[in-house]
Amino acid sequence: MSNRIKGVLSPVVTPFAEDSTVDLARFTTQCKWLQANQIGLAFLGTNSEANSISPDERIAMIDAVIDAGLDPSGMMPGTGSCDLPTTVRLTRHAVDRGCAGVLMLPPFYYKGVSDEGLYRYFSEVIQQVGDERLNIYLYHIPPVAQVSITLPLIERLLKSYPSVVAGVKDSSGDWNNTQAMLTHFAPEGFDVFAGSETFLLRTLRGGGAGCISATANVNAPAIHALYKSWQEPDADSQQQALDKIRQIFQQYPMIPALKSAIAHWSTTSSWTRVRPPLVELDSQQHQGLIQQLEAAGFSITGLET
Amino acid sequence: MSNRIKGVLSPVVTPFAEDSTVDLARFTTQCKWLQANQIGLAFLGTNSEANSISPDERIAMIDAVIDAGLDPSGMMPGTGSCDLPTTVRLTRHAVDRGCAGVLMLPPFYYKGVSDEGLYRYFSEVIQQVGDERLNIYLYHIPPVAQVSITLPLIERLLKSYPSVVAGVKDSSGDWNNTQAMLTHFAPEGFDVFAGSETFLLRTLRGGGAGCISATANVNAPAIHALYKSWQEPDADSQQQALDKIRQIFQQYPMIPALKSAIAHWSTTSSWTRVRPPLVELDSQQHQGLIQQLEAAGFSITGLET
Repeated sequence: MSNRIKGVLSPVVTPFAEDSTVDLARFTTQCKWLQANQIGLAFLGTNSEANSISPDERIAMIDAVIDAGLDPSGMMPGTGSCDLPTTVRLTRHAVDRGCAGVLMLPPFYYKGVSDEGLYRYFSEVIQQVGDERLNIYLYHIPPVAQVSITLPLIERLLKSYPSVVAGVKDSSGDWNNTQAMLTHFAPEGFDVFAGSETFLLRTLRGGGAGCISATANVNAPAIHALYKSWQEPDADSQQQALDKIRQIFQQYPMIPALKSAIAHWSTTSSWTRVRPPLVELDSQQHQGLIQQLEAAGFSITGLET
Repeated sequence: MSNRIKGVLSPVVTPFAEDSTVDLARFTTQCKWLQANQIGLAFLGTNSEANSISPDERIAMIDAVIDAGLDPSGMMPGTGSCDLPTTVRLTRHAVDRGCAGVLMLPPFYYKGVSDEGLYRYFSEVIQQVGDERLNIYLYHIPPVAQVSITLPLIERLLKSYPSVVAGVKDSSGDWNNTQAMLTHFAPEGFDVFAGSETFLLRTLRGGGAGCISATANVNAPAIHALYKSWQEPDADSQQQALDKIRQIFQQYPMIPALKSAIAHWSTTSSWTRVRPPLVELDSQQHQGLIQQLEAAGFSITGLET
C-alpha cells in the first residue's frame, strides 16, 4: 500500500473551447500547474463536470494528460457512470494507462436502490476489469448523487475485494460519517479522503489519507501546506485560514466560481465557460467573488495566461 | 401535427442475455408483440433500464427494431443523458432512423440547477441536431431524475422551438401538475402524456394525448382498449379495472415485477434478469406477484415463449 496515492487532490475543472469541446491543451496545462503545486489529479470529478462530458471525451482527457508526460501515479480520474459497460470501459482505460486509482460514483439514476444492488454493481465492475492493479475509491456524495455508499456496503466490498477497494471520498459534508469511516476502516489500510479541506485537519488527525477538494483547484499551495504540516503547532490556524477562503467560494455556485477565479488570475476569460445545465456567474457575481477574495488577501499565482 | 404519435406507449423492458448483454432478438420480439397490441414503443425509458445501458448499446437497440421492420412512426425512444454530446448523438440517430419522436430526460446529475441552465441544454440539443423532423417529448420524472421540467421552462422552450417541442411525459404522479400542463399548453397542440395509465382517463378528458406507462408492458390490450373507448359509458369502470392491476404491480419494485410477469407468462425465466443496481424479485416476491395477478383474473397472452 506504500504506493497508494495520498494527500490533497483536486477535481480539476474542465476548460471548454469556444465550440464547447474540451480544450485538451488548456486542461493539460492546468493539470501541470496542479502537479507543480503537489496536488493530485482527481480529474473527471463532480467539479470537473464529468457527467456533462461524453465517454469518448473522457477517454481523450485521460490520454491527453498522460501523453503530455504527466505522472499517472498522481492521478485518480472519475470513472463512475450510471451504466456498467461505460464504467468498465473508463476504468479499464485508466488502469491500462497507469493511473494510481479511480474515483467511482455509484450508479445514480435510480433512487432508493439496495446495498445488494450496489454491491453487485461494484463487484461486476471489479470482475469485468479483472486487473490486480486496480484501486477503487468509492465516491460518497449523497447531496448530488442521491445514492449513498453506506458503511455496510463498504464492509462487504472490503471483505470481498480487499486489495481493490482502496478507499473512499466522503462528500457527505457530515463529519460524523467521515469519522465513522475512519474508525471502522482506516485501521485496515482503507484510505479515507475528506470531500473538502474543511475537514482536512480532522481527517488527518483521525488517520485519514487527505482530501479531494473543489477549492484545491484555486487554493492549492495553502491546502497542500496544511497537509504537509498538520502536526505543527500552527495547524489549527492554517485550517482556519483555509476555511475563510472556502466560505467565500461557497457563497456562489461552486463550479462557476472556481472557473471565474481561474479566469481572473489567468486573465483568460474563456475559463468561465461551463456546459449546460450549469450557468457561469453573471458579471455582478463574478466581481463580487473577486472583490471578496482580494479583500481576504487571496490570489492565484503561476497560472498559464 | 396529424402525424404525431398518440395513444398508449410502453417503456419497453429490456431483456438481457446470460452474459448481461442486451438480447436484441428477444427485445425485437417483445416490441413486435407490443406493436401488435397497438402499443407505441417508448423504449429506452426509465423502465427499460436505459441509463444502465451504454450509448453504443442504445444505438444498437434503435437499429435492431428498425432493421427488423418495425414501424418507426410508432417509436419514441429515450435519448436523454447527463451529457450533451451523448444526447445529441442518440437523438440524431433516432431522427435519422425515422422515429416519430424522442423522450428526453433533463441532465440529471447536478441537482438544484436553474431553468436557464436547462433551457440552454435543450436549446443546444435542438440546434446541434438541427433537423426539422425532430419531435422532442420532455420527460418530467422528479421522483427519479430529481430535476424537474417546470411550466415556465416548457413555456420558454415552446416559444423558441414551437415545431420541435412536441409534448411532455408527466411522471410526477401529481395530477395537479398534469392538469396544469394540459390547461396551459394542450390548446397550442402540445401533447401531454400521463406517466401511467392511472391518469389515462383524466388525461384524455383534459385534452391529453395518452399515456406512457410501465404497466403497458404487461396490461397492453386493456390499457389500449380504454384509450380507444374513453368516451364510452363504461370508461370509468375500465379505468378502475386498470387501476386494480396497476396497484398489484406497485406493491413490488416495478421493473423486476414487470420482468417477473413476462417471464411467467412467456415461460422464459431469463426475462427476470436486470442490470445492477437493480435486483430481480426473490422467489417469494415472484410467487406472491403471480398469485395476486392470477387471483385478479390477469394473464398475458401471445408472448413469444
